[in-house]
Amino acid sequence: MMKTLAHLTFAGLLAAAPAMADPAPVLDPEIRAQAEALMAAGLADDVGLEFTESLTTEIGPRLAGSDAEWRARQWAMIKLKDLNFQQAYIESFNIPYWERVTETASVVGDNPQPLLITALGGSTSTAKGGIDAEIVRFTSLADLKSAPADSLKGKIAFIDEPMVRSQDGSGYGAAVAKRSGCAAAAASAGAEACLIRSVGTDSHRLPHAGGMSREGALGVLPAAALAAPDADQLARLLQRGPVKVHLDIQARTSASAASGNVIAEVEGTSLKDEIVLIGCHLDSWDLGTGAIDDAAGCGIVVAAARLIQALPAKPKRTIRVVLYGSEEVGLFGGKAYAAAHADDLGKHVLAAESDFGAGRIWRLRTGFGEGALPYAEAMQDVLAPLGIIPGNNTATGGSDIGVLGAAGVPIASPDQDGTDYFDLHHTADDTFDKIDPDAFRQNVAAYAALTYLAAETGWDFRKPVEPETIDN
Amino acid sequence: MMKTLAHLTFAGLLAAAPAMADPAPVLDPEIRAQAEALMAAGLADDVGLEFTESLTTEIGPRLAGSDAEWRARQWAMIKLKDLNFQQAYIESFNIPYWERVTETASVVGDNPQPLLITALGGSTSTAKGGIDAEIVRFTSLADLKSAPADSLKGKIAFIDEPMVRSQDGSGYGAAVAKRSGCAAAAASAGAEACLIRSVGTDSHRLPHAGGMSREGALGVLPAAALAAPDADQLARLLQRGPVKVHLDIQARTSASAASGNVIAEVEGTSLKDEIVLIGCHLDSWDLGTGAIDDAAGCGIVVAAARLIQALPAKPKRTIRVVLYGSEEVGLFGGKAYAAAHADDLGKHVLAAESDFGAGRIWRLRTGFGEGALPYAEAMQDVLAPLGIIPGNNTATGGSDIGVLGAAGVPIASPDQDGTDYFDLHHTADDTFDKIDPDAFRQNVAAYAALTYLAAETGWDFRKPVEPETIDN
Repeated sequence: MMKTLAHLTFAGLLAAAPAMADPAPVLDPEIRAQAEALMAAGLADDVGLEFTESLTTEIGPRLAGSDAEWRARQWAMIKLKDLNFQQAYIESFNIPYWERVTETASVVGDNPQPLLITALGGSTSTAKGGIDAEIVRFTSLADLKSAPADSLKGKIAFIDEPMVRSQDGSGYGAAVAKRSGCAAAAASAGAEACLIRSVGTDSHRLPHAGGMSREGALGVLPAAALAAPDADQLARLLQRGPVKVHLDIQARTSASAASGNVIAEVEGTSLKDEIVLIGCHLDSWDLGTGAIDDAAGCGIVVAAARLIQALPAKPKRTIRVVLYGSEEVGLFGGKAYAAAHADDLGKHVLAAESDFGAGRIWRLRTGFGEGALPYAEAMQDVLAPLGIIPGNNTATGGSDIGVLGAAGVPIASPDQDGTDYFDLHHTADDTFDKIDPDAFRQNVAAYAALTYLAAETGWDFRKPVEPETIDN
Repeated sequence: MMKTLAHLTFAGLLAAAPAMADPAPVLDPEIRAQAEALMAAGLADDVGLEFTESLTTEIGPRLAGSDAEWRARQWAMIKLKDLNFQQAYIESFNIPYWERVTETASVVGDNPQPLLITALGGSTSTAKGGIDAEIVRFTSLADLKSAPADSLKGKIAFIDEPMVRSQDGSGYGAAVAKRSGCAAAAASAGAEACLIRSVGTDSHRLPHAGGMSREGALGVLPAAALAAPDADQLARLLQRGPVKVHLDIQARTSASAASGNVIAEVEGTSLKDEIVLIGCHLDSWDLGTGAIDDAAGCGIVVAAARLIQALPAKPKRTIRVVLYGSEEVGLFGGKAYAAAHADDLGKHVLAAESDFGAGRIWRLRTGFGEGALPYAEAMQDVLAPLGIIPGNNTATGGSDIGVLGAAGVPIASPDQDGTDYFDLHHTADDTFDKIDPDAFRQNVAAYAALTYLAAETGWDFRKPVEPETIDN
C-alpha cells in the first residue's frame, strides 16, 4: 500500500482533498444519526471506566505468560459475558517466558549510593551476587556501536540519551532504539552489561521497563534501565571521574508459557462474515497495573462495542473485539491472531486498536485504499464535534494490528494525545488514578461512532483509485 | 511572646501597621544599597546551586546517624573551608539510630499483587518472613483511636486520609498526625501493624518516609506508608470485600550513633558577640538524595552567608550558619545546639532557617517583639522587589530553630512557596533535578539581604512595645 501511495503521489494529494477531486459520499442520514447517538452515549459511558478499574484493581500487573495474565483472560471472559456479548472465546498460543526476580544497582567507591533500575525484558542474569564494573557513558546507540571490539572489556556500557516529548509519540521510535540495541552493541564491544536512561519523558525515580527486542528473544547481556534522575546522577558522577557500579540482576526464563487472545463479537446481519476489528492488549508490564497501557484501551473498545451491541438493530458487519495477549514482550498476540485467521484476512474490512493511553483523540488517520479516502473524510466529519481533526492516510496499524495492515487490511487510527503518555509508560506509575474520565469517555464515543460507521455503511476501505481519477 | 501578643492585641494591630503608629525606621541608605547589591549578587549566584548539586551527588542520601551523614559532615567542612569562611567546626552529639533493612507488602488471596510501601522511621520489625493479616480501613487517626480495645486483634490498621495541598504547608500538620499516631493507636486496639496513606500530595508510586514521632522514639508496631496509588488500590479492593495483606518489614536499630551540627561563621566587627543565625539541615531521609529537603536549604544559607563573607567590610554582628544534623529523626541537631548554647541564647539576635524546599519566597513572616515590627516592615520593603509580601508576626521558627524561638530568640521566616513541596517530600523523588535554579537564586538573594540587614543595622528584634505606643 505504501508503494502504491508513492506511485500515486499526485493522485493521492487529490484524493486527500476530495472536495476538489471527488465529493464525500452522502452518508445516509439515519446512519449518521445513529452514529451521533452512539457518540452521545459514549460521552456518558461508565462501562469502559468500570472495565478498566476492575482489570487494574482485581488483576493488577499481568505480565505476558504469567499466572496473572491467565487470570486476566478468565476475568475478561466473565466480564464480556456479563456485558452480553453474543460470542466470547479465547484463542490460545504459547510464548517464551521471561520475568525479573531481583534487580539492584549501586554506586560503589567514594560516593556510595543506590541507583534505581529495572531490568529490561530479556535481560540475562549477572553472576549471583552481582558484578562490579566501571561505567562507560555513550550519548547514543550509534556512539556505542562505533566502540571498537574489546574496548569495553570488563565494563558496563551506559547509553544516556534523552527522549523527546511529542503529541504523536514519534519521540518513542528514536528513543527506543537504545533499549532494543544496547545489549547487543555492548556485547560486541566486550562489555559485561548494559544500562540505559529510561525510555520516557518524566523525571521520577520510576524506571521504565520494556523489552529488548520486538521478537521477545533473550538478550545477550544483563541490561537495565535507570530512572531519569539516576541517569542524571550517574552522568554527574562521571563528570568527576571514573565510576564503578555494582549491578545484580536475576531473571527467570522458560521456553514456553501459555498466553492467549480473548475475543468477543457483535454478530453482524446482512454482511456478517465481514469483520470490523477493534483491539487492545490485555497483558501489561509487571511494574504498574497497566492502566494506560493498556487496560484503558480494552475498556475503550469493549465499551464502544457494547454500546453497539445494545442497539435494537445490529449493524450489517460483524464487530470483533480482540483483547490481545503478550503484546509487550513481542507482539505475540497480534501475530497469533494473524496466523490463526490467515485465510480470512480478506474478510477484515477495517482494523483499529487503542494502545496509546487514555488521552483525548485529536486526529483520525487512515490507511485506506486511495479511492476510499472520501470515507475517511466522512468518518472524520462525524467525529469532528469530539474535537477530532483529519489526519493523513499513512496509518499502518499499531503494535498488534500492524501485521493486519501489512497484509492489506485497511486501518483506522484514531490518534490519542500522547504528550504525557511516556511519563507513565511501562513504569510502576501506570495506575488507574492517572486516567482522566472525560478524555476516556471521548475515546469511547469516537470508537463507538467509527466502529458503527464501518460496520453499518458497507463501505469498501480498500477501494483503489479509479483510473479516471488518476487521469484527471 | 505569644502571651504578650494576646494581651496587646490592639497595640499589636497598631504596631502591625506602623505607618500609622510608628514610622518605619529610616534605613541608612548605605546599608540599603549594600543589601540591594547583595540581592543582585544572589540572583546571579552559582555557589548555592553548586553546593546543593555537590552534596546531593557526592553524598546522596544521608540518613541521620549513618556513615553517609558522617561523610556529609566531612564534605561540608571541606566545602566551607573552600568558600573561605573564617570559622568552621562540628558540634557532635549522639542519637538513637534506626534504619530500614527490607520492606515489602503484597495483597494475598484472589487478587494477588504487590503494594509499594516504605517503613516509617521507628517501625519495629515484623516476624521474620512477614505476617499475613486482614486490613481494617479508617479514614482518620481519630477513627482509629475510637476503635475498641482488642477490636483489631490479628489485623492491620490502615489510615487512609489524604493530605490537602497548600502554599504555606499547613496541610502537613493535619496529615502528619496519622503518621505520628498510627502505630500507638493501632497497638491500643490490639492490631499487629499499621499502614498509612503516604503523607504527601502526589499520586506517584513513591511512598513518603517519615518518623513516627518527633522524639525519635521507637514505635510500638511495624508501620509503613503506602504510595498514594497503592492506598487507592487497597481502598478499591476493600470495597469488594475483606483483603489480606502480607507485610514484611525488617529494621535495624542501635542505642547510639554519632551525629553533629556543622557550623560556619562570618565574624562580626563592632557587635561580634551578637549572633544572626541562619540554618538548614544536613541529614536527609534515605530514599532520595535530600535535594529539596534540605540540601537546597543549606545551599541557600551558605551561599547567602558567603556573599556577605566576600564583602570588603564585614557587618557588625557575627553571622552563624548552622547545618543541623539529625533533623529528620527527631530534631536532635536543633536541641543539641540549643543545649550547647544555652548560656548565650540571649546573644542570638535573630534566627532563620531554610527547610521547606527550593520554591520562591513569597512572604516574610516574623516573630519579633511588638516594638520591633517596624524593622520587619523595613526588611520586607527591601525584599519587595523579589516578589515578597509582608506576613504576620506569628512565626515561631521551623523544625530546628523552633527551640530557639521558644527560648525567646527573635525569628524571621522567609516563607517559600510549598505548593508542590509535598509531592516530593521524603520520597525517592527528592533529587537535584527538581530544583528550579531561578527560584533557588531568589532565595539566596532574600537570605543574603535579610541576613545582612540583621547583622549590620544593630536593630533589636526583641524590642517590646513601648508604653506610649500602648497609650496612643
